[in-house]
Amino acid sequence: MSDPSKIIGAPTTAVGQRSPATHLERTPTGEVVGSSLTPLQDLSGTLTPADLHFERHHAGVPLIDPAKHTLLVHGLVDRPMLFSVDEIKRFPQATRIHFIECSGNGELAWRDGAFGQPNPGLTPQLVAGLTANSEWTGVPLRTLLDEVGAKRGAKWFLAEGGDACRLNRSIPIEKALDDALVVWAQNGEPLRPSQGFPLRLLLPGWEGSTNVKWLSRIELGTAPWMTRWETATYTDPLRGGVARQFAFEMDARSIITSPAYPSTIPRGWNPITGLAWSGRGKISRVEISTDSGKTWSVAALDGPIHTKAHTRFTHMWEWDGRETIVLSRAIDETGYMQPTRTELMAVRGKGTLYHWNCIYGWRVMSNGRIFFHGAT
Amino acid sequence: MSDPSKIIGAPTTAVGQRSPATHLERTPTGEVVGSSLTPLQDLSGTLTPADLHFERHHAGVPLIDPAKHTLLVHGLVDRPMLFSVDEIKRFPQATRIHFIECSGNGELAWRDGAFGQPNPGLTPQLVAGLTANSEWTGVPLRTLLDEVGAKRGAKWFLAEGGDACRLNRSIPIEKALDDALVVWAQNGEPLRPSQGFPLRLLLPGWEGSTNVKWLSRIELGTAPWMTRWETATYTDPLRGGVARQFAFEMDARSIITSPAYPSTIPRGWNPITGLAWSGRGKISRVEISTDSGKTWSVAALDGPIHTKAHTRFTHMWEWDGRETIVLSRAIDETGYMQPTRTELMAVRGKGTLYHWNCIYGWRVMSNGRIFFHGAT
Repeated sequence: MSDPSKIIGAPTTAVGQRSPATHLERTPTGEVVGSSLTPLQDLSGTLTPADLHFERHHAGVPLIDPAKHTLLVHGLVDRPMLFSVDEIKRFPQATRIHFIECSGNGELAWRDGAFGQPNPGLTPQLVAGLTANSEWTGVPLRTLLDEVGAKRGAKWFLAEGGDACRLNRSIPIEKALDDALVVWAQNGEPLRPSQGFPLRLLLPGWEGSTNVKWLSRIELGTAPWMTRWETATYTDPLRGGVARQFAFEMDARSIITSPAYPSTIPRGWNPITGLAWSGRGKISRVEISTDSGKTWSVAALDGPIHTKAHTRFTHMWEWDGRETIVLSRAIDETGYMQPTRTELMAVRGKGTLYHWNCIYGWRVMSNGRIFFHGAT
Repeated sequence: MSDPSKIIGAPTTAVGQRSPATHLERTPTGEVVGSSLTPLQDLSGTLTPADLHFERHHAGVPLIDPAKHTLLVHGLVDRPMLFSVDEIKRFPQATRIHFIECSGNGELAWRDGAFGQPNPGLTPQLVAGLTANSEWTGVPLRTLLDEVGAKRGAKWFLAEGGDACRLNRSIPIEKALDDALVVWAQNGEPLRPSQGFPLRLLLPGWEGSTNVKWLSRIELGTAPWMTRWETATYTDPLRGGVARQFAFEMDARSIITSPAYPSTIPRGWNPITGLAWSGRGKISRVEISTDSGKTWSVAALDGPIHTKAHTRFTHMWEWDGRETIVLSRAIDETGYMQPTRTELMAVRGKGTLYHWNCIYGWRVMSNGRIFFHGAT
């Protein structure tokens, strides 16, 4: 490439493309029952570009005509109503920054660590890329429940998507009255099809599958519906043959996104930076260890800190060239501290299928190369 | 389109495309000395997607190899230094949400209104689309000035881009010590070429052209350089043959983005929603008139409100079907109120070339159609 200041550049365009020098991609499996992960190691700040927000769906991404899409709200209500998308957009609106994390985030790192040697070639994307953080705009669900007249006996609601598997989840009514939104926009623009266009349920801090995409039906009732999505799946097997159901809140977690595999760092000052989040509120502290977990320092948090949102932490570290392991752990405003794998397994057993939020580290080799270390 | 819930959807993908039902585009002139405007009427919330952030450049968009790009900091410093992009990224980093607005934002609406009849077919994009709001990540400029050892006598600095016109602007050193950043990321991802990849200067709240893209040189000195970019252009002609130079701060402004041309509204409740911002700090209040400016109501602001950032306002309005004009005006935390065109022209004259932040309205016809009205 010759000196760009000696050449007239490109004209204005309708849509600004990324530089060919950047390679930002999710990890598509190419399956309709599949997932693709957010490239956390390539991102800065706290927001996830809409086109890089992870995917998880069970019958592919439906192509929906917004002019034909409707949201039915019925069940234990005074006035069952069918809303068009335009009608939904005419209610008073709210804009909030929140993460969405799949409860299956971190399966690869957990299985490697629980059943064998961790794979040193895992990137932050592969370790924890089933999380993303966005600005969402929509109508508070409680406004819709006021409109239809939710009956006093309604204790749960069922949220159902308009995809081919009609994914649905039972949710306690308290969440609707708290901070649930029916959203139509992400990061300023209309939702993309893979994020639920034209309407999605947003339950801040709750496991990803409850944030039902392509939202087409909300039914109010007295008890959970026990659908296949909360019995055959999205239920956590524990020790002794029992299971944990309706484990909605995502526990506090953090991931160092740099330095991380496959990067190499020079000696001297390097920022250790990454993301922390909690489904229970704000992140109050992130601690960093650069000596394999012996001692911990408090990282700087970049404000403003939003509740139930990715929070960027940075800790400046002067690396002396010796091999070590760097780790991060998140503490949220409830006082909860991200656990070690040993602590997590003591509660959940090694076979649990969801909610793996334990502390992981990155090994720094004496040549500056970084590899995934797994749990200490 | 048949029922999407009866068809298996699309598989996961590396990058999530927009729905074919949405049409989000800037307005490219297709020129290398040109601009393209943000489609404000199609956006919700407060953020602008990176690919829809307006453009304004004077020698096209350069295609820069980040491995070869450097930032020279020299002049009145103890240690002139040449930084690679990787070196810049190793400093302590900060993430902030701020708008960037071109000082020429609103030229079309101003000229129509000042010299003739306003064009009723202007959209929010055409009225005020040279503004955008993003999360930016970079290093505080004061950190770099500490690194090179800025001399006590340094009162101004020159920021210069690596594009073919080497656009440069003289900036008081106080801004560097306040909130200036050298940024590499926008909305989580690396800057796009049309926004300055790989490095851009960010001067929160200051006119767009000072936020130098493709930043390649910062020189410290004792006085402004009086470059062509602050003499032949980006200087405001006033009444009586004088001119206003170095008018850095963008005055408070607002624009209703819905309802607006070319939409049509039904009778009954409609949200009047839009964006307000100020280069001097936070928006403290937005007022709405639905009776052509006779009376004003306070709109709801969607929090958290960031300093020098787009702020979303919403006011619920029950339209009775009568023709009227709806208007918005912003008040910032310094107490400044967005002026009428008459007030603005009394200070600046009708020939001024920049900083047109006056109040504009939208005419609501009795059939629900909306047209740009201009100033009242």
